[in-house]
Amino acid sequence: MTPDEMKSFVAGFLEEVWNRGDLAAADRYLAPEYVIRHDPGDPWDGATLDRDGFRDRLIKSRAPFPDQRFSIVDAVAEDGRVAVAWRWSGSHQGEVAGIPPTGRTISMSGITFYYIVNGRLTGHWQEVDRLGMFRQLTAG
Amino acid sequence: MTPDEMKSFVAGFLEEVWNRGDLAAADRYLAPEYVIRHDPGDPWDGATLDRDGFRDRLIKSRAPFPDQRFSIVDAVAEDGRVAVAWRWSGSHQGEVAGIPPTGRTISMSGITFYYIVNGRLTGHWQEVDRLGMFRQLTAG
Repeated sequence: MTPDEMKSFVAGFLEEVWNRGDLAAADRYLAPEYVIRHDPGDPWDGATLDRDGFRDRLIKSRAPFPDQRFSIVDAVAEDGRVAVAWRWSGSHQGEVAGIPPTGRTISMSGITFYYIVNGRLTGHWQEVDRLGMFRQLTAG
Repeated sequence: MTPDEMKSFVAGFLEEVWNRGDLAAADRYLAPEYVIRHDPGDPWDGATLDRDGFRDRLIKSRAPFPDQRFSIVDAVAEDGRVAVAWRWSGSHQGEVAGIPPTGRTISMSGITFYYIVNGRLTGHWQEVDRLGMFRQLTAG
């Protein structure tokens, strides 16, 4: 894939799989094994997931924020890697990290390195501003 | 600059300016204006700094952790941008965010998009795991 093809591929993954929650589409994007190399605060940090495991993570991650949306701020691609800076928002409709639903619209930002081999995603390395998110979830 | 030249340039910036605290070297890396586009938790988030302003930020940011070191985990470069995933550590020797020095060695990770125009850095967009850092600073 060219850098532009890699960026389009990751944009499609975020839109179809994460924004729409399309479980069937995930197979077109994921390699048989997907490694969460580094993702502080994510319950699957460090895990190697097969496609069923990834779908389980997707369902459980989307449940507290069913209308969640990622929007891409910037993306840089080179040699099998795509770095994506993003903003995210969603309404808090289910328990997350022990916090019962608040109904609030929560905003967050993060950056992810996605790794691509043979046209499929093999994993990511991610940082998100989880302190900023917790402050919104727990504000008085 | 080619992608490899951009990655070497950013690696030199992190080593000379941030790891060594070399104020004179900063001039070789910085454009006349440096914009902190997005950096949640950084006191200069959103600021436009001239070189004196950047040196002031460098001195104040390094003071609590004078032996701090960034090490690059991965870097991706394309078209005037370099995305860098990094780890950081330093011993906590001065007050930071109202927390008096603990003497602890603190570790952190983050990802930064650096922007380059005419061979000089014009700003960054950054995410760091500040919750992970605060937990180490405030652990009982």
